[in-house]
Amino acid sequence: MNPIHENELIDELTRAFGRSPIQLNRRQETDAEIVFLPTGSDCLLALTTDSLAEEIATGLYDDLYLAGWMSVMINMSDLAAVGASPLGLLISEILPENLDGPSIQRLQQGIRDACEACCTHVLGGDTNSGDRLVMTGTALGVCRGRTYLSRIGCKPGDVLYTTGPLGGGNAFALRRFSHVMTPGVFPSSGMHRAEEIDPARGGNRIVRYRPQARLREGESLRGIATACMDTSDGVIATLDQLMRLNGAGFELTPGWESLLDPAARREFEAHGLPPWAALAGQHGEFELLFTVSREDRELLAEASSRAGWKALELGAVIEGNEMLIPLDGGTIAFDTAYLRNLASGCGTDIRATIGAMLAYDAKIQKGVQTDVND
Amino acid sequence: MNPIHENELIDELTRAFGRSPIQLNRRQETDAEIVFLPTGSDCLLALTTDSLAEEIATGLYDDLYLAGWMSVMINMSDLAAVGASPLGLLISEILPENLDGPSIQRLQQGIRDACEACCTHVLGGDTNSGDRLVMTGTALGVCRGRTYLSRIGCKPGDVLYTTGPLGGGNAFALRRFSHVMTPGVFPSSGMHRAEEIDPARGGNRIVRYRPQARLREGESLRGIATACMDTSDGVIATLDQLMRLNGAGFELTPGWESLLDPAARREFEAHGLPPWAALAGQHGEFELLFTVSREDRELLAEASSRAGWKALELGAVIEGNEMLIPLDGGTIAFDTAYLRNLASGCGTDIRATIGAMLAYDAKIQKGVQTDVND
Repeated sequence: MNPIHENELIDELTRAFGRSPIQLNRRQETDAEIVFLPTGSDCLLALTTDSLAEEIATGLYDDLYLAGWMSVMINMSDLAAVGASPLGLLISEILPENLDGPSIQRLQQGIRDACEACCTHVLGGDTNSGDRLVMTGTALGVCRGRTYLSRIGCKPGDVLYTTGPLGGGNAFALRRFSHVMTPGVFPSSGMHRAEEIDPARGGNRIVRYRPQARLREGESLRGIATACMDTSDGVIATLDQLMRLNGAGFELTPGWESLLDPAARREFEAHGLPPWAALAGQHGEFELLFTVSREDRELLAEASSRAGWKALELGAVIEGNEMLIPLDGGTIAFDTAYLRNLASGCGTDIRATIGAMLAYDAKIQKGVQTDVND
Repeated sequence: MNPIHENELIDELTRAFGRSPIQLNRRQETDAEIVFLPTGSDCLLALTTDSLAEEIATGLYDDLYLAGWMSVMINMSDLAAVGASPLGLLISEILPENLDGPSIQRLQQGIRDACEACCTHVLGGDTNSGDRLVMTGTALGVCRGRTYLSRIGCKPGDVLYTTGPLGGGNAFALRRFSHVMTPGVFPSSGMHRAEEIDPARGGNRIVRYRPQARLREGESLRGIATACMDTSDGVIATLDQLMRLNGAGFELTPGWESLLDPAARREFEAHGLPPWAALAGQHGEFELLFTVSREDRELLAEASSRAGWKALELGAVIEGNEMLIPLDGGTIAFDTAYLRNLASGCGTDIRATIGAMLAYDAKIQKGVQTDVND
């Protein structure tokens, strides 16, 4: 598989570091770090840190309530993906000097409400002043019974599931940035600007993007899921990473489009973009993608029912590092490395991203399955 | 006592938050947050997060190795101040896009070496790109035997100690910023520029500012110190905070100047600044200031000797919210709130800071003990 720029950067950054003797996971193996207490205890600790900088700087999270909310959820979602229960959260905030009292209150209210939604608390934090708002959260959790979920362990034949509908994060980004696009470049951009001004319209649910970490789901998957990862970077990036780590591939179920968030699907359709593009952007919906062996499907049904949720079947694990997606024209092998690097490389340039996706779709339609990157 | 701007900001930020039922410390009561494991364990966890943003943006930490080193040490120092042993560290880095490979290596080497100096490891982290370098560390530690050090608990009569020489952080900042001062404003600024260019000169030790978290010291103080706090914001800020939290004051021992780092003292003298100014800036030396009741002095001597270090007597806890410092002209009551707000308010404007400190010193010399802020 082609290298991923982000993975290469992480390798470069961590090359000099040794590994801790109390750490159970290897690099990239889990969404949160797993350590045991040297003093002996019947539980494992899960620890994760994530910053919001680009999403704020680019204006994607221009709503301060959302910035506060997300600074909690991105970290809680990592705890969910290892099956941990949260013990609490630390928040470090770099606050611009011109941020007024009501703005700060809105930011803090987002943090507070997200913590409440996760039944957890802010334990402490730090504040600095700076040119731009940067929010860094760190979450601590506990894995009871000394078991945790890992990204590694799925085998061909396992069933691939999602904890909820997909595409909401990318649809939100498309919507947020569509107003900066040149009018006329995409047929429907004018309509979407109008929709943005009028929150009473049907697309309203996307504007109120409020991902919820799947903590309950993750906890009930311990001992059942063979691999698990959150979709914080979008579905294709998540599946690409799982493919690399497991030396396996994925094939989506025919009719996978029905698992897209309906509002997200409308948003992509309105921009003339194919449904698969809702999976290909880098803006996540913070669901969990996980695999279960076929024998354990009954076990999953029982555990999820007990915990009050329902797993949605998205596909299956297959042999080889391939990502097969059934489309109208047949089943297509997607170049996930190309799409993943594209999403992170284009950054906020939504026109470039859309243009590249339309070009990729045109290649697909022509039945060209080679690397369009060439 | 007059309010402290930083404390007011923290109150504003945390107003909306509830407290966690598993958290033992109250707000401001400890340098790190203390939680117990709901699953039952014979140890407590200590957790702290600190970002480096202003120190990098202002150029104080323009050496990337130092930025990496400090991103670890500021957090380890908080663990030291609660008497915790480190379990590990998370690092979130906002990297400017123009940072080249060798620069990133230097940054990471600073992190690595600081971890090695603290016998700990990087467990994980996060990277984002942004306009400016921001480093956020989060440290996890364990307090064995379910005891930890708090900022609260000292009583009049207790002896005040430091784990090491003082003033190194402020001398480093004075030295770093002196080259941006207008020549001639201070008699010795020219000489200091020369010294900065020539690292073979005597002041060299200050340029190599490498604070070391006092982990061994903090751990051996559990059960002995009545209060403890690190000097991350400078000595006067630390004592001011301890005064507020304990409803008590401090009087420094005559001859306290001998506890200043000799190189730091020379730096301040060369700028025509009084020795007390080395305690008044906001740039810490990351020593621990702690108090011990008079009956437990022998216990302290034994414990510190066993751990291989020596406590330095700095003063005593007194009745009333006063900070008394013996100077040539007698014992002066310092307005710590004024000096603390001054240090954070002037920011990088070293000329303004120095000017204000010289003005304060002139008032002291005239025997004026009222608030020079009026």
